[in-house]
Amino acid sequence: MIYKKILTFFLLVVLSKADAQQLTWQQVAPGVWKGVAGQPEKYDLVKASGSTPSLAALQKMGEASFPLKQEEIQATLTDGKTYLRFPLAEKEQLFGLGLNFQTVYQRGKILQLHMDHYGGKDNGRTHAPVPFYVSSAGYGVFINTARYITVYAGTAVRKDSKHPPVEKNRNEDKSWSSRPYSDAVEILVPAAGTEIYVFAGPTALDAVRRYNLFNGGGALPPRWGLGFTQRVKSLFTSDEVKAEVDSFRLKGYPLDFVGLEPGWQSRAYPGTFEWDKKRYPDPAGFVKDMLKKDIRLNLWINPYVSKQASFYKQIAPYTGSHTVWTGEVPDFTIPEARKIFFGQLKKDQVDIGVSGYKIDEVDGYDYYLWPDVARFPGGLTGEQMRQTYGVLAMRYSLDMFKEKNERTYGLVRASNAGANTYPYVIYNDYYNHEDFITALINSGYIGVLWTPEARASKTSEEWIRRFQTVIFSPMAMINAWSSGTKPWSYADVAAPIKELALLRMRMMPYWYSEFAKYHYEGTPVFRGMSLEPGFENKTNTTVKKNLEDNPYLEAVSKEVKDQYMAGEYLLVAPLFTGQQSRKVILPKGKWYDFYTGAYAGDGEIITVAPGLDKIPVYVKDGGIIPLMPPLLHAPEKGQKVDLEIRVYGSKPGAYKLYDDDGVTMDYEKGAFDWRTITISKDAQGKLKGAVDAAHNKAIQSYNKITFRFMTAP
Amino acid sequence: MIYKKILTFFLLVVLSKADAQQLTWQQVAPGVWKGVAGQPEKYDLVKASGSTPSLAALQKMGEASFPLKQEEIQATLTDGKTYLRFPLAEKEQLFGLGLNFQTVYQRGKILQLHMDHYGGKDNGRTHAPVPFYVSSAGYGVFINTARYITVYAGTAVRKDSKHPPVEKNRNEDKSWSSRPYSDAVEILVPAAGTEIYVFAGPTALDAVRRYNLFNGGGALPPRWGLGFTQRVKSLFTSDEVKAEVDSFRLKGYPLDFVGLEPGWQSRAYPGTFEWDKKRYPDPAGFVKDMLKKDIRLNLWINPYVSKQASFYKQIAPYTGSHTVWTGEVPDFTIPEARKIFFGQLKKDQVDIGVSGYKIDEVDGYDYYLWPDVARFPGGLTGEQMRQTYGVLAMRYSLDMFKEKNERTYGLVRASNAGANTYPYVIYNDYYNHEDFITALINSGYIGVLWTPEARASKTSEEWIRRFQTVIFSPMAMINAWSSGTKPWSYADVAAPIKELALLRMRMMPYWYSEFAKYHYEGTPVFRGMSLEPGFENKTNTTVKKNLEDNPYLEAVSKEVKDQYMAGEYLLVAPLFTGQQSRKVILPKGKWYDFYTGAYAGDGEIITVAPGLDKIPVYVKDGGIIPLMPPLLHAPEKGQKVDLEIRVYGSKPGAYKLYDDDGVTMDYEKGAFDWRTITISKDAQGKLKGAVDAAHNKAIQSYNKITFRFMTAP
Repeated sequence: MIYKKILTFFLLVVLSKADAQQLTWQQVAPGVWKGVAGQPEKYDLVKASGSTPSLAALQKMGEASFPLKQEEIQATLTDGKTYLRFPLAEKEQLFGLGLNFQTVYQRGKILQLHMDHYGGKDNGRTHAPVPFYVSSAGYGVFINTARYITVYAGTAVRKDSKHPPVEKNRNEDKSWSSRPYSDAVEILVPAAGTEIYVFAGPTALDAVRRYNLFNGGGALPPRWGLGFTQRVKSLFTSDEVKAEVDSFRLKGYPLDFVGLEPGWQSRAYPGTFEWDKKRYPDPAGFVKDMLKKDIRLNLWINPYVSKQASFYKQIAPYTGSHTVWTGEVPDFTIPEARKIFFGQLKKDQVDIGVSGYKIDEVDGYDYYLWPDVARFPGGLTGEQMRQTYGVLAMRYSLDMFKEKNERTYGLVRASNAGANTYPYVIYNDYYNHEDFITALINSGYIGVLWTPEARASKTSEEWIRRFQTVIFSPMAMINAWSSGTKPWSYADVAAPIKELALLRMRMMPYWYSEFAKYHYEGTPVFRGMSLEPGFENKTNTTVKKNLEDNPYLEAVSKEVKDQYMAGEYLLVAPLFTGQQSRKVILPKGKWYDFYTGAYAGDGEIITVAPGLDKIPVYVKDGGIIPLMPPLLHAPEKGQKVDLEIRVYGSKPGAYKLYDDDGVTMDYEKGAFDWRTITISKDAQGKLKGAVDAAHNKAIQSYNKITFRFMTAP
Repeated sequence: MIYKKILTFFLLVVLSKADAQQLTWQQVAPGVWKGVAGQPEKYDLVKASGSTPSLAALQKMGEASFPLKQEEIQATLTDGKTYLRFPLAEKEQLFGLGLNFQTVYQRGKILQLHMDHYGGKDNGRTHAPVPFYVSSAGYGVFINTARYITVYAGTAVRKDSKHPPVEKNRNEDKSWSSRPYSDAVEILVPAAGTEIYVFAGPTALDAVRRYNLFNGGGALPPRWGLGFTQRVKSLFTSDEVKAEVDSFRLKGYPLDFVGLEPGWQSRAYPGTFEWDKKRYPDPAGFVKDMLKKDIRLNLWINPYVSKQASFYKQIAPYTGSHTVWTGEVPDFTIPEARKIFFGQLKKDQVDIGVSGYKIDEVDGYDYYLWPDVARFPGGLTGEQMRQTYGVLAMRYSLDMFKEKNERTYGLVRASNAGANTYPYVIYNDYYNHEDFITALINSGYIGVLWTPEARASKTSEEWIRRFQTVIFSPMAMINAWSSGTKPWSYADVAAPIKELALLRMRMMPYWYSEFAKYHYEGTPVFRGMSLEPGFENKTNTTVKKNLEDNPYLEAVSKEVKDQYMAGEYLLVAPLFTGQQSRKVILPKGKWYDFYTGAYAGDGEIITVAPGLDKIPVYVKDGGIIPLMPPLLHAPEKGQKVDLEIRVYGSKPGAYKLYDDDGVTMDYEKGAFDWRTITISKDAQGKLKGAVDAAHNKAIQSYNKITFRFMTAP
């Protein structure tokens, strides 16, 4: 009897563990390893995006050892699915796992990473459900699958856990917790196999950089993309657009590109993808006029094809089983579908000078998108297509511009892993300023760009507070398709708004260099404080006296989601409507006021009350910020501008200033330059600046260069 | 070239349709057909519940023809999943698809039927995610799978739809809709096959009855289960329980069973499943004392086992891979696990006279339940176990009582298809009175029981309004585990509350007969108006002038979710806090006031203002309601009571009065009786009543029988 029980127990243990397997890891680049569980699917996120690693840049980052204990990473193949398990140490915090809007810390969360609009909860359904996480312990994990995966980020507790939580009697023990500690990240991949990539640190930022570089590096926008953009009212005519553009110039507000909303098309929802001849009688002339004024055009689309489209019959064999608002859904995995669809856009719009698109509604809402039971003629399931449709639309739209040797910079409502290099910025319909900043922070962990766009506001206070973060973001945009709001619409803040818009323009050399670092080195321009060396979150909410009973309370420390890094040197601490002052956590090292150069603090929490006109921005000691004059549009190809290099604090240092023609794809063929700005001390200990000469005579965007030492010695 | 295109088109069409298959249907009972798609899994809802069809009752309902066009039901096997499609006509409305709390009409919804607590949205995550729907066209569809299925209930629009919605240009057409009409129900079953059952009508109620009978018929509670129950404060001692019971008797409020919450156990969350000897020093004596007072006991549990449980080591080999609040999860599919777990409950509690359980937290919240990556030694996945854990716990708990030839009547927080016969009522933590009534209505479509329990209230008005619906529900309960509220806690309504509680007791012969009809004939006791013949929803919200443009607006007609049928004759129209009056939609035919017998209306909408003390209840013409005296507890086995038979309206008719011993399982061996109450007209056209003699002398619960004709001629 005892014998039988022991045997049964033994068998159960053996059987239940039989198909848990350790993975074999293959180094695919320095600090990047690929693991394979089961039989990975033919289609995955890397294949959807077509991304290729920036091997040279990864090599430059150097070798590193595998950042986890390999024997603690396990895969179990069961039920046609892959269950993954990764170790999680007591003090780790996790970041990433999709474009979350309300939380930065992901430990303790359960997320089903599922392409969707953002529905108000950080549950994994979002515009960029990127299956990548980075740990505060300095490594990253990427699950390369185009399926809806479920991530238990330190929630599920295994019976055989090596660090199990302590059992408590809820009847009598007040310290009983409804969410016991877990020492693992577990992931359900609903497919019979998957590729997994692990990225080494040593820091969390290094892991993010390796992830970005593995996917080809970040996007490099054209210079004009970093200027200012206004999206005009939905049914505007070409004359109304011209008038609006003229009013920007007349009033002295910068403007680089204008977005046209559904009304540019003859039909929308579903679309014909051709100009509406009533509102736009002469598209080519109109686009040409705009370009003469240095104004580029960006056109709204969603890719769902009307039966009235001129190419409907051609594309119909290559569309999915289900319609979206009665429109058919091109299967962009099929070359013929791409040729027909983007052929129409190219012929009708790009070839006459349109510079980009806003690709709407590729994220979905279950009630309008194709269902998961949809099928596509190229072979994808509804699920795979949903996870990657935005990626495919971006990817193949780029060919239209590449063929013209032009860059684009557009908007998209759905992205995913692998799309890092695509010059598209995510936006959505949600409109919470605080949450927009949280999303901006989270975008930096997962290789996507996000714009905290301004639309309209209830008060001029809200308007300027939103505008202040717009200019410290990847795309400085007013999206007025519905409201018609202009930067000057709130008269009492029209003047400081103009100052802010011009500051955005002045900072273009900095933004452009920082985006180049995103592209060539993988460093996200806008990123959370946890990626900043010397940052310590001292706003812990845990109660000290409980730490002995529960050593895991660390995980619930308060998130910092209202300040972020912008480029190499800047710490941005926005205020939100209703705030007169706020606390700012300064990392270790000296920090200086961006506007005055005055000393602000060192590794401490300061309180600032900047007034309505200012957004608090701090510069790291030794910070070097190159500025240009406040032009009303970005410098065009070959246009030279002066440079004022601002220097903060007292430390010598160096800055890498990027340059190329700003508009073509020639940088991909090596037509770019890095110039080093060096700040050193002279014999008297006084700071002085110098800049390399341009290494490539053909590329020289800067004329006269001056230095301005912002901090009094 | 043209050739090639045609060929490609042809191939694509052929390929994409190649594996869509029509199903073959096998009649398994009169009016019930089974279809098989792919390879159904070994484990499904019917197997989990062990339900067996009530074939005799189904045969009595008679033959019927297949209610849909078989060629319009299709299954596609792809991606390891089964995609199902069912036709949906223009004017159909759909009901069921889980225990929804806010909506009754399910057409136009997307639901992932996923066992969970109710999170505030009707999205398919609920305590009874029953994959069954019934159509207003008079048929039902049941997907027999223990997986999380996704149902597109008339939302997804196929490219090849035979009744496609009309394309509109959103730019200029204001009638554009974001949710175009769909002519199909599509379902994603994440498994490589499934059984499907179709139930014939001709009415929707017939389809529901066939579904219920296919699963063995509805639950038949013991008589005491239909009395009143109070759940006492969590940490009450046996002395405190005794005092509370005495106060009910002293004050003259009825009481049949008392619920003990976590404190009865020595440890909880996770549990030991043994009495706490401090609070309950003599469990056997205590239970015996209670039974002497005709008070039964119901014990709270959740099935998660503490390491301190006496049987922990025995059961550990048979628990799942993951813990719940550090407790281990018995795999009830394994006989040994059941023997150990329920063996403990039987020995420690049932054998000393405990009458039932409240099985808590088997529904889950992702943050405490096992994850979907969990595995169970019996072979089930986390998903399959989650969909059915409540069903398994109920099913095997019944054996403890069957062995004693006793009935039980308990509470459970998770149920599913197939569990129809189990005498368990669903409850939850949510507490919205209106939504509780919507859930009561929805429970009637899917073969489960739901209690709109009262806990505590902000005002005496809310208290009495809640109490009024408590007594017209499957379990008349105050759940005071946290608040300690008693029926008389709100002094200004204590007297009418007592009247209501005693009315519940008086109506016991009616409730008991109606539950017998649920059991033997499949007719749900509490059910939505759409199942009532002659009911017409005249509160359409559609705007007439648009009907020409959009013939599908019918689907958005206003739901009726604030009135319901209770048994054969009663229409209950509760008021909610803040209401002084309300509208009631009376179906066609004459209706009478339950309290006075006065004529109320016929196929019309009436407005009533009943005052605080009354809940509006109407009786169908010819309604026959048997009442007993207002006892303080249900009649015990062999106890005889008088019967007052109330007759409403002017129609002759008949009522089937059910009888058995009320407490044992002997009814399963035929020890029951149906007596016919006949109302006929005498020579003067005056109504008179008669009752069959009891057919089984051993079963005769009723003494003196009198008639009371409520409506003046």
